[in-house]
Amino acid sequence: MVPFESIMSATVLDGKKIGRLIEEELHNRIISLQSKGVSPHLAVVIVGDDPASHVYVRNKEMACERCGIQSTRIDLEEGISEQEILDTVHRLNSDDSVHGILVQSPLPDGINESLVTDAISPEKDVDGFHKMNLGRLVQGDASGLLPCTPAGVMKILELSNIDVSGKNALIIGRSRIVGMPMSILLAQRGIDATVTIAHSRTENLSEICRRADLVVAAIGRPEFVKSDWIKPGSTVIDVGINRIIDSSRKSGYRLVGDVESGASDIAENITPVPGGVGPMTIAMLMSNTIMATEIQSQ
Amino acid sequence: MVPFESIMSATVLDGKKIGRLIEEELHNRIISLQSKGVSPHLAVVIVGDDPASHVYVRNKEMACERCGIQSTRIDLEEGISEQEILDTVHRLNSDDSVHGILVQSPLPDGINESLVTDAISPEKDVDGFHKMNLGRLVQGDASGLLPCTPAGVMKILELSNIDVSGKNALIIGRSRIVGMPMSILLAQRGIDATVTIAHSRTENLSEICRRADLVVAAIGRPEFVKSDWIKPGSTVIDVGINRIIDSSRKSGYRLVGDVESGASDIAENITPVPGGVGPMTIAMLMSNTIMATEIQSQ
Repeated sequence: MVPFESIMSATVLDGKKIGRLIEEELHNRIISLQSKGVSPHLAVVIVGDDPASHVYVRNKEMACERCGIQSTRIDLEEGISEQEILDTVHRLNSDDSVHGILVQSPLPDGINESLVTDAISPEKDVDGFHKMNLGRLVQGDASGLLPCTPAGVMKILELSNIDVSGKNALIIGRSRIVGMPMSILLAQRGIDATVTIAHSRTENLSEICRRADLVVAAIGRPEFVKSDWIKPGSTVIDVGINRIIDSSRKSGYRLVGDVESGASDIAENITPVPGGVGPMTIAMLMSNTIMATEIQSQ
Repeated sequence: MVPFESIMSATVLDGKKIGRLIEEELHNRIISLQSKGVSPHLAVVIVGDDPASHVYVRNKEMACERCGIQSTRIDLEEGISEQEILDTVHRLNSDDSVHGILVQSPLPDGINESLVTDAISPEKDVDGFHKMNLGRLVQGDASGLLPCTPAGVMKILELSNIDVSGKNALIIGRSRIVGMPMSILLAQRGIDATVTIAHSRTENLSEICRRADLVVAAIGRPEFVKSDWIKPGSTVIDVGINRIIDSSRKSGYRLVGDVESGASDIAENITPVPGGVGPMTIAMLMSNTIMATEIQSQ
């Protein structure tokens, strides 16, 4: 007999569908900008040949096409100097036809990523990683350009009517890109989650996870979060996209999240991998590009 | 018979003593600056007649005197406009003889505090509240000008050899001044606490608190954290300084923290109120002023 737990199944939070909805909602704002003679324009800088980065950039370009946002891709060679990357950023900063600038992460070894990020004009920083934009968030103002992945997670929760007020939210991973801004967004007034930030050094993580009403897994390790850590009735947001070797696939690999797939039998809501947080991140990038264009054309 | 628990007593983390130590350690750096003809100089702007604010500012001036830091106090009237406060800040920004600028909080109703904070040059922002300085922290760089109270708490832990790596740290209160930057500092690499941010909307706070190895109470409510919420063996940092009416005192009031006094019978380490976090905050302000002077005179 199939045990009771395994015949339950979580509601899948369809990031692709929600992301497309967000993209469609940008339509009127784009029309309004165009009627003023402004054509929203995103510049994407990519350094080197990392295959995953190239897939991400291509996905961003396709999203721009879908939305009617102009995109320009700047390919730089792997061996380029930090100064040459900074020069490219400065040139894009002073180009009035460009409204959003994104430098695809990771950058080659030896390049200071924070330095490159902070070289982008804060009002063109559509990734939301500039210290001005992150700092505004700590000050309690979430109305500016927010990091796309955490902002996408907030949108999934909002549009899926998942209320986390007073509840235990566990964030696994403390990156500047996901974990830290995520913690600030979830703890902010009006959202009101009780937020725990865990990481590789956390003791008794399984125990902490079993008390969490919301788990955001962003540690970048395949199936790190075990199914039996998940509290029945909880919401699981899986930010991880890990390639693992799978010789049965034509590509030789498959994508898995940071959460064991069995979690979908226990959680009440869960994001799939792929098709969960990934498309939401891209939708928020489109949204940030439009916000940046509006700010610059006021 | 006295029950066993009540004859145990926590080690008192003497913020006044540790703070003075930190101030003394600035001596050589001040001498070195003076030998280059640079006299560290803090400007403190205070608006209106709030008695508590005047006490705080006086304490900061006295600390400057102790350390050999020049201080200038600018008193502005309660009814002053936001623009006049901003003009004062701009004037201090362009005054090369001033290295640190602090605008005492709270400002009168109707004045946008974040606007005033962000008007201060980031390199003169000795309170560490400017979005550039808070944002750097989210990026994982804690080497800049840090908010004084959270930085002071980190120093108490460090100098008292309290290791929180992998442990549960609970922060009660989510202000931009204390709670939020505190969470980032405790979760950073090398400190490695598992950090929970709780607040007025948190459910089951007593239960969460009973699991905490470190409690930082910064909610601004007298004795909000009850003694029986404290885990035996834990460290309690009481950031609150609340005046409560006490007709038995000549002043008519007494100061209590955010934690019930009985907590000192249960915790292993505890900061007193007053004489705990308060003097540490001031010592870190002195430390920030010297750092700011060094940066500006490089």
